Amino acid sequence: MYNGLKIEPPFFEIGPKAYMYGDRMLKLAKAADKASKKYDVRIILTPQYTDINLLARETENVLIFAQHMDPLPIGRGLGSVLPEAVKAAGAVGVMLNHAEKPMTVSDLYRAIKRADEVGLVSIVCADSIAEAAAIAHFAPNIIVAEPTELIGTGQTSDRDYVIATTSAIKEINPEIQVLQAAGIKNGDDVYRVILAGAEATGTTSGIMKASDPEAMLEEMIHAVRSAWDEVHKH
Amino acid sequence: MYNGLKIEPPFFEIGPKAYMYGDRMLKLAKAADKASKKYDVRIILTPQYTDINLLARETENVLIFAQHMDPLPIGRGLGSVLPEAVKAAGAVGVMLNHAEKPMTVSDLYRAIKRADEVGLVSIVCADSIAEAAAIAHFAPNIIVAEPTELIGTGQTSDRDYVIATTSAIKEINPEIQVLQAAGIKNGDDVYRVILAGAEATGTTSGIMKASDPEAMLEEMIHAVRSAWDEVHKH
Amino acid sequence: MYNGLKIEPPFFEIGPKAYMYGDRMLKLAKAADKASKKYDVRIILTPQYTDINLLARETENVLIFAQHMDPLPIGRGLGSVLPEAVKAAGAVGVMLNHAEKPMTVSDLYRAIKRADEVGLVSIVCADSIAEAAAIAHFAPNIIVAEPTELIGTGQTSDRDYVIATTSAIKEINPEIQVLQAAGIKNGDDVYRVILAGAEATGTTSGIMKASDPEAMLEEMIHAVRSAWDEVHKH
Amino acid sequence: MYNGLKIEPPFFEIGPKAYMYGDRMLKLAKAADKASKKYDVRIILTPQYTDINLLARETENVLIFAQHMDPLPIGRGLGSVLPEAVKAAGAVGVMLNHAEKPMTVSDLYRAIKRADEVGLVSIVCADSIAEAAAIAHFAPNIIVAEPTELIGTGQTSDRDYVIATTSAIKEINPEIQVLQAAGIKNGDDVYRVILAGAEATGTTSGIMKASDPEAMLEEMIHAVRSAWDEVHKH
Repeated sequence: MYNGLKIEPPFFEIGPKAYMYGDRMLKLAKAADKASKKYDVRIILTPQYTDINLLARETENVLIFAQHMDPLPIGRGLGSVLPEAVKAAGAVGVMLNHAEKPMTVSDLYRAIKRADEVGLVSIVCADSIAEAAAIAHFAPNIIVAEPTELIGTGQTSDRDYVIATTSAIKEINPEIQVLQAAGIKNGDDVYRVILAGAEATGTTSGIMKASDPEAMLEEMIHAVRSAWDEVHKH
Repeated sequence: MYNGLKIEPPFFEIGPKAYMYGDRMLKLAKAADKASKKYDVRIILTPQYTDINLLARETENVLIFAQHMDPLPIGRGLGSVLPEAVKAAGAVGVMLNHAEKPMTVSDLYRAIKRADEVGLVSIVCADSIAEAAAIAHFAPNIIVAEPTELIGTGQTSDRDYVIATTSAIKEINPEIQVLQAAGIKNGDDVYRVILAGAEATGTTSGIMKASDPEAMLEEMIHAVRSAWDEVHKH
Repeated sequence: MYNGLKIEPPFFEIGPKAYMYGDRMLKLAKAADKASKKYDVRIILTPQYTDINLLARETENVLIFAQHMDPLPIGRGLGSVLPEAVKAAGAVGVMLNHAEKPMTVSDLYRAIKRADEVGLVSIVCADSIAEAAAIAHFAPNIIVAEPTELIGTGQTSDRDYVIATTSAIKEINPEIQVLQAAGIKNGDDVYRVILAGAEATGTTSGIMKASDPEAMLEEMIHAVRSAWDEVHKH
Repeated sequence: MYNGLKIEPPFFEIGPKAYMYGDRMLKLAKAADKASKKYDVRIILTPQYTDINLLARETENVLIFAQHMDPLPIGRGLGSVLPEAVKAAGAVGVMLNHAEKPMTVSDLYRAIKRADEVGLVSIVCADSIAEAAAIAHFAPNIIVAEPTELIGTGQTSDRDYVIATTSAIKEINPEIQVLQAAGIKNGDDVYRVILAGAEATGTTSGIMKASDPEAMLEEMIHAVRSAWDEVHKH
């Protein structure tokens, strides 16, 4: 596990996928930059590969992650995403094994080791409790417990799911952080998930499809802070 | 076929694959920038996705192409390379269907249409004469006739191969440009291929594995110019 | 192009995909066997790989094809479908590049050459006129002109589409046979497509989802014969 | 975990990959059938999909497994290997996630659940101790501890590796059986691995590339029995 950058909870992941890019992406990244500072919430932003350099240069607080990378070494591999190149472009981490970019068991394990090697925080998606437990053996920094069945359905993970996934992962490796992600569509969903015990959550469509993405981002990050303070007030 | 940017022959493609990135890549890109102007040879450079933004900003003459892109529309698709994002980052073109990143027949056709749509020059690799003829029906801007058997073996395409591939492609669509690419390891190889009638050639390992990549680049671009002038002197 | 088995038009392809297998598949294959003889219509049946041996042994007239095969040579390749093994199991042909099992340009070309080599009729799917023309350069025995947009929608290809695809293919290689396939849901659809000039057609869901698959098969093969006789009566 | 068929140790897996098929495969399967009975050693044989039906029909003792299957349900999915079809053809199990046919984390988990559902013993390959531990969370019947680095190199797994992998797996799920597989090239290698504590081992090239595959099979199965008796004599 890479330990060069500890992401202090609470944190929040924004996944633009292929919805946003270029100048429009930069505008949202700058809003995330401000919200991160204002609410003291760490924000992970996973832009298109081609936007990493721009966003890393133009932001201060937001944590730029690649959407994926390949486990290959320096050398051949046209069309690949080289770990060293991701790092050099200014990313501080990488997402791996999302349901839209699934990896083989071996490639995932190798990619996590490559992230450790070049110095990138790894955040790995798991579709079920069994998969989360399995992936915990590869010691990524963060596991996203995101049941595919719920992605984009508008149903948030409930307290039982939060507890079950968290304990399944931490039992194998207590240093792994857990992000609870499915179905976040507004600030209320964010509030409920954090209140249910999550140390982090995130969204794609909640912000990408909002009529005012920057306003929704503000609403969600505010909700992270409010819920976190509520949970930790004593 | 996208006609917003006509690449005047002779031209030369440098493919860094996953060999070079970041500052080292920028140094080579700047050398290519100068050589392009000095010898009046167009140079296509296909860096890692993450370096497109940096190189497009820091160079003037060199033509930055993505190594690949996916045919998806704006929207879902985490881990993808979105055509609009490639364009927004400053690339002017995209390579497709390299032997290390092969595409299905349908995806290749869709990606070429997406390149036309967003305004990117498409350069598509073909492993044989039959494949080059097939791909010509999709009307990309450039076809790379690069027999996989020869890649990296140090054997250049001979005159017969140049003539056969060129005529097979131009018979279907005379507007498609043809780049002859396999096995270029030094200036002599470049000279021979251009003299054999090619309007373009290129290399990966010839430059990437050279002890002095910038010197080898200079040698090769000089050879393009010399051979081209020799062929066209009358 | 493999010329060891000429499939005389009219012919009809039944694609069980992953809908039918084992004894149920055998029952339908036997019905196809009888209908083929009764109506003098060649029937191509593409069962699961695991059913090829059984069906080839238990039928006489129906032409058993694999749903796909890999272009690999004899040797390593666990999990592959070896051309020689397909042939040895009793198949007389192979389908390639269906929209649900798309192949890269190079693998498709190599697989067609492997089919020629081991003696298997190749039937290759194309999603558009441009793709059909492209694939014609690889000289398969049969091209399926099956616009993906129409698959399973219940809309048959119209006369213009039949003429356009057929001429695009035959212009490149007049020996290639053309099967018009999308959206066949009953005997009327079959009749209309053959009347529009097709030498062959076929279906998956039309038969697989019918309440009585054997009755629907009979209806469709009867329609092939009636339309063919109507077209060729003079 | 499917518990309809318990494979009593010692057992041995023969992987023909794409080396052997048809009548030649049947000859070896019959030799395996005899050796299994003679030495009281269970033999798993993973032929090409197309040979499952033939071998299941013509053998009595040998355990026929598919080389792979897809986790899809009955329905669409041309070119797939349907679990129900594998079972119907006579296979009693399925191999999953071999280094030559790697699966994504999610597909592997789903395929194991599909094997349980249709009644197939699952044997899953792992490239390292971490991967073996991860896969144990999916509760397959058997895990093959086969370090990719050693495949085909002629170096057998040593005692430490046998102990380390076995304990890593059994600690998570003691019901999972462990097969130690890399680099078996003759009877001596088999003897050494079983003596090191393995309950099972296997080979591809050791038998496939032998000048007399049936003689080598006999030698190896005899070695399994001898070593097993040596280990368990008290």
